[in-house]
Amino acid sequence: MNKRGFASDNNSGVHPEILKVIGEVNQGHTIAYGDDPYTEKATQKLKEIFGPETEIFMVFIGTAANTLGLDAVTQSYNSIICAETAHIHVDECGAPEKFTGCKLLPVETADGKLSIEGIKKHMHGFGFEHHAQPKVISITQASEMGTVYTVEEIRKIADYAHEKGLLLHMDGARISNAAVSLGRGFKDFTADAGVDILSFGGTKNGMMYGEAVVFFNKALASDFKYRRKQGMQLASKMRFISAQFLAFLKNDLWERNAEHSNKMAELLEQEVKKIPGIQITQKVEANGVFAILPRELIPELQEEYFFYIWDEERGEVRWMTSFDTTVEDIMGFVELLRGRMDRR
Amino acid sequence: MNKRGFASDNNSGVHPEILKVIGEVNQGHTIAYGDDPYTEKATQKLKEIFGPETEIFMVFIGTAANTLGLDAVTQSYNSIICAETAHIHVDECGAPEKFTGCKLLPVETADGKLSIEGIKKHMHGFGFEHHAQPKVISITQASEMGTVYTVEEIRKIADYAHEKGLLLHMDGARISNAAVSLGRGFKDFTADAGVDILSFGGTKNGMMYGEAVVFFNKALASDFKYRRKQGMQLASKMRFISAQFLAFLKNDLWERNAEHSNKMAELLEQEVKKIPGIQITQKVEANGVFAILPRELIPELQEEYFFYIWDEERGEVRWMTSFDTTVEDIMGFVELLRGRMDRR
Amino acid sequence: MNKRGFASDNNSGVHPEILKVIGEVNQGHTIAYGDDPYTEKATQKLKEIFGPETEIFMVFIGTAANTLGLDAVTQSYNSIICAETAHIHVDECGAPEKFTGCKLLPVETADGKLSIEGIKKHMHGFGFEHHAQPKVISITQASEMGTVYTVEEIRKIADYAHEKGLLLHMDGARISNAAVSLGRGFKDFTADAGVDILSFGGTKNGMMYGEAVVFFNKALASDFKYRRKQGMQLASKMRFISAQFLAFLKNDLWERNAEHSNKMAELLEQEVKKIPGIQITQKVEANGVFAILPRELIPELQEEYFFYIWDEERGEVRWMTSFDTTVEDIMGFVELLRGRMDRR
Amino acid sequence: MNKRGFASDNNSGVHPEILKVIGEVNQGHTIAYGDDPYTEKATQKLKEIFGPETEIFMVFIGTAANTLGLDAVTQSYNSIICAETAHIHVDECGAPEKFTGCKLLPVETADGKLSIEGIKKHMHGFGFEHHAQPKVISITQASEMGTVYTVEEIRKIADYAHEKGLLLHMDGARISNAAVSLGRGFKDFTADAGVDILSFGGTKNGMMYGEAVVFFNKALASDFKYRRKQGMQLASKMRFISAQFLAFLKNDLWERNAEHSNKMAELLEQEVKKIPGIQITQKVEANGVFAILPRELIPELQEEYFFYIWDEERGEVRWMTSFDTTVEDIMGFVELLRGRMDRR
Repeated sequence: MNKRGFASDNNSGVHPEILKVIGEVNQGHTIAYGDDPYTEKATQKLKEIFGPETEIFMVFIGTAANTLGLDAVTQSYNSIICAETAHIHVDECGAPEKFTGCKLLPVETADGKLSIEGIKKHMHGFGFEHHAQPKVISITQASEMGTVYTVEEIRKIADYAHEKGLLLHMDGARISNAAVSLGRGFKDFTADAGVDILSFGGTKNGMMYGEAVVFFNKALASDFKYRRKQGMQLASKMRFISAQFLAFLKNDLWERNAEHSNKMAELLEQEVKKIPGIQITQKVEANGVFAILPRELIPELQEEYFFYIWDEERGEVRWMTSFDTTVEDIMGFVELLRGRMDRR
Repeated sequence: MNKRGFASDNNSGVHPEILKVIGEVNQGHTIAYGDDPYTEKATQKLKEIFGPETEIFMVFIGTAANTLGLDAVTQSYNSIICAETAHIHVDECGAPEKFTGCKLLPVETADGKLSIEGIKKHMHGFGFEHHAQPKVISITQASEMGTVYTVEEIRKIADYAHEKGLLLHMDGARISNAAVSLGRGFKDFTADAGVDILSFGGTKNGMMYGEAVVFFNKALASDFKYRRKQGMQLASKMRFISAQFLAFLKNDLWERNAEHSNKMAELLEQEVKKIPGIQITQKVEANGVFAILPRELIPELQEEYFFYIWDEERGEVRWMTSFDTTVEDIMGFVELLRGRMDRR
Repeated sequence: MNKRGFASDNNSGVHPEILKVIGEVNQGHTIAYGDDPYTEKATQKLKEIFGPETEIFMVFIGTAANTLGLDAVTQSYNSIICAETAHIHVDECGAPEKFTGCKLLPVETADGKLSIEGIKKHMHGFGFEHHAQPKVISITQASEMGTVYTVEEIRKIADYAHEKGLLLHMDGARISNAAVSLGRGFKDFTADAGVDILSFGGTKNGMMYGEAVVFFNKALASDFKYRRKQGMQLASKMRFISAQFLAFLKNDLWERNAEHSNKMAELLEQEVKKIPGIQITQKVEANGVFAILPRELIPELQEEYFFYIWDEERGEVRWMTSFDTTVEDIMGFVELLRGRMDRR
Repeated sequence: MNKRGFASDNNSGVHPEILKVIGEVNQGHTIAYGDDPYTEKATQKLKEIFGPETEIFMVFIGTAANTLGLDAVTQSYNSIICAETAHIHVDECGAPEKFTGCKLLPVETADGKLSIEGIKKHMHGFGFEHHAQPKVISITQASEMGTVYTVEEIRKIADYAHEKGLLLHMDGARISNAAVSLGRGFKDFTADAGVDILSFGGTKNGMMYGEAVVFFNKALASDFKYRRKQGMQLASKMRFISAQFLAFLKNDLWERNAEHSNKMAELLEQEVKKIPGIQITQKVEANGVFAILPRELIPELQEEYFFYIWDEERGEVRWMTSFDTTVEDIMGFVELLRGRMDRR
């Protein structure tokens, strides 16, 4: 049995309901590469959620969902504005630059969330051929810092983007956690708030693999099937990705998982706050908790419950909860932490 | 229940033994992105097969295994020589060109297999900066035409490649079928025959997803982990790919699957040969059968047992068998075909 | 004094009238990067020739004119069909693949000229995402083999391309030689014959550097200024390219140069034909002569009048004439050749 | 006659001594693409300056010198650290990203000069495959803000880079101005200070076109000839670039030009300082002067002496001097400026 820690929501395994449906679709032959009834059905399900004008494409992973979604709406001379902490900027080994040819323009933020003010810094040089032309603003929902954009914040950025001729991309690797946090449906803070392209995440919320690129405007997706194939993201046995999405969306599994995960983060925050000497550094709005603690304690804590250091210099760590995190995990860790703090 | 046909070996589902191991590793947390015990073990298993000097990297699909394997050993000013029928040339939507920047140089062949004679046509312009510099010869084993290179044929191409300063890449999407066909171990016709980089296929032989890029020279792989990540092929929950390989290699599942699949192709060939008026166009050495039949029959046959037309003009079709093809499938199809031929 | 040979029309220097205008525009300051009166004027001149709907962009070299012109009208998942001898395929070190991401599909030809028959081989897989999507047919006028497409031939290819949803690109590195050969204006066999994008060459016909990318449909050029800049082809002191085009087009310098060059090739052909044992292998329609001669003579001939071997195996050589080739050059070389042949 | 302004040093024309040598080499035929005696000689000259271990490659423009120089020493998964004002970051329309695939990491600076402190921010994630791997630090000498790194400052950055396994690249578009400013030879603050790759600029200091990529370590340049060709920067009639460098280096033309240009900037600074209400914002160490002046005056000043606004918001402008700027230009402009200020 592998011990659960707080390293990442993708250190967890697969939710049993998802595994079950994988087994169920494992029957006979279906046309490969997505022309199968399960993919048809999963696509239909997502269109019911996001609207009939939506175009849906399954891919393997989030890095690809982001990179190919951005590729679909840019030319290589464009630039993409994002938070300095954005996954596309710091965690994808330059995949967006390599694949799209675009320049990424990072913006410093306090909480992982872009503001118009921060974006403005890069909004110049339009029409000037020496300058990479801004084309996309990319936000992450929930953000890499565990914070969540309100619907209103998203709409403001979307309006600003559209007014300037840009598009709004959302990295939704943790979109379920955001939806639960906001108490809103997926559509409310994506299509209806002005988002143009969405990476709809499954893996970090209980799936084995599989994400979807969602276009809220068919025109943007007209040639995406070629980009997905050339981008090495067209699954041959695609029914097994689609089956996962069917399970994910059935009986609101996504919501149950995310709700639990968010609650565990909240519990962790509340319990840690009771321990003097530890500073929570970000609002806990999804399933991540950021904290500064005495540096010397980190290694022994990691041995029992693995997690990552976020900012070496500040001694800031990140604790992620997952759909399978238990109250015992939280309390066990908090107890350990309290003990270590007391002993100092 | 989805009816089995002869469209492709990836229209089939997942072998039950593979599904079973996926379930078994679905326990608790493990470090994501490959730093888990299952990946360690699967890698170890593959090293036992291919030799300790081997470097192994799991990826999602064959297009990526090929493209990234080629990327690892080329610069953008290189060219890659392959058969005109090669998957990298006709079935990957230009992924190798896009990702590596290299030029692909196709060679016409009668049977999908490269010969030195064919390769030579492109072996010029060395040191001449106007000319993309030949760097890799890529062969497919078993080939896209259902034929299989002998160990000796591979060694000859490898020797020729090395003598000229080139490397030999093998697309092994159907490597199990080739191994069974040759009655040889994987290593005999790869590492030991001079292959430098191998795409080791799993999906077409009973896995859900997952291939491995195998380097037979550690130096070639020194920075591959970055290429895999930037190439959008680093699975977060990698244990589930590795688990599949564990099952694939356990009790020679790969061999049982491929043996069965090859036998079904052989049976199909034998039975079809008995029907006058149908011409088998390629040697049946793995799990594919190519045949020319009266054009007007094709659509009704496809309705019952789906398969693809290979060459519209010649009326040539391709029938692929799979690990789950049954004798009944073959005999049912042959009967249908015979009936249709008789009725003409 | 550097001796003239028959190696290439870009081994020659610059025509004095061109050098003169360069000196004339070297006065005071003008806005850099093309926003200067000379560029305005040169562009105007070219629009008078090609039509007001034309868009014109100066670049440094032919490889760039081709590569960027193709880039402007393709996506990375497209393919480009060209003759196997095309400059874009054999002489640009893979620049088109690297920069556009596209696949190049070569067609064998007898004389460097594409035919519909040859093109057809690659016209399949439309709408099939596994296959790079054909988007451009590229022809070279005059061809790399010294032959010239008739207006009718071009129109046929253009009609075929457009009917299939493709575009026609022309590499016009030696367009002046073709125009003189055909006795037609530039527009007759480009815009009016259905060409969509043209690389208009200057360097091989007496300029120092500079080519123009010509779009016959403004829509194709809408974002080309960014592609040119990102493609590293935006000259800061662009007035000096434009000045050259002004001189090139003034008093039909282009025509005088090409006419002379073509005549010298014709003379060379006629004189060589008189020598028994030498086989002219291609029609001489522009400024190149291809011939097979006894292999052992080649090195000593090259010493006196440098030229390149075209096909090592066949003993085929290429002799290019230039605007500055003299009758004495031709007769001197022919005499030498005759002497060597006699002595055998 | 085109009026001189202060827009850019590449709004100027060509120095007469350079034009003269272009005419002198315009004699007969030479081998194209750099295998000519003038290129040999220019290369030799540069090797005398930079050392025999140096490798020299002529290209057309600075954007290409930078982009290809960086391409030569990176893989696509690398990152490149530079000042936020660096030409490679803001003025090359994303050419480095497109061509190298790398990520650019900008650092805010007060004066266009990188410091170790600023660089450190990006020096993490080594060996971590999710993170683009820092490989090159790029500095601009003289900087885009008209400031100049001291030899000591460069050596410190070089030492830091090398200690961390990175390389140091210098964009030397205005290297002559820097050399004059420092009173040092080119080698002192490049090769001898630890620079690994240099873009050696000519165009901004009196040439028509032409820059050189200089490698101070032969190993880095081993395949650069292919990169230059594929990068669309191999001039056919290269003798005309080389001739310019011969003139540039002869009788220290580069130095005379840069000295004059720098002096004109100094004069402009001194005179402007005498005018109350205008703030010089950067040290004037090369040929650029940055100043904040009342916004409403800018348009009318631009009409007489064209120049660019640097920072719209602050009302900061940039005045560049050139080899052909005259004392009369400066005094005329200062008088105009004073008059306008007085009239407010």
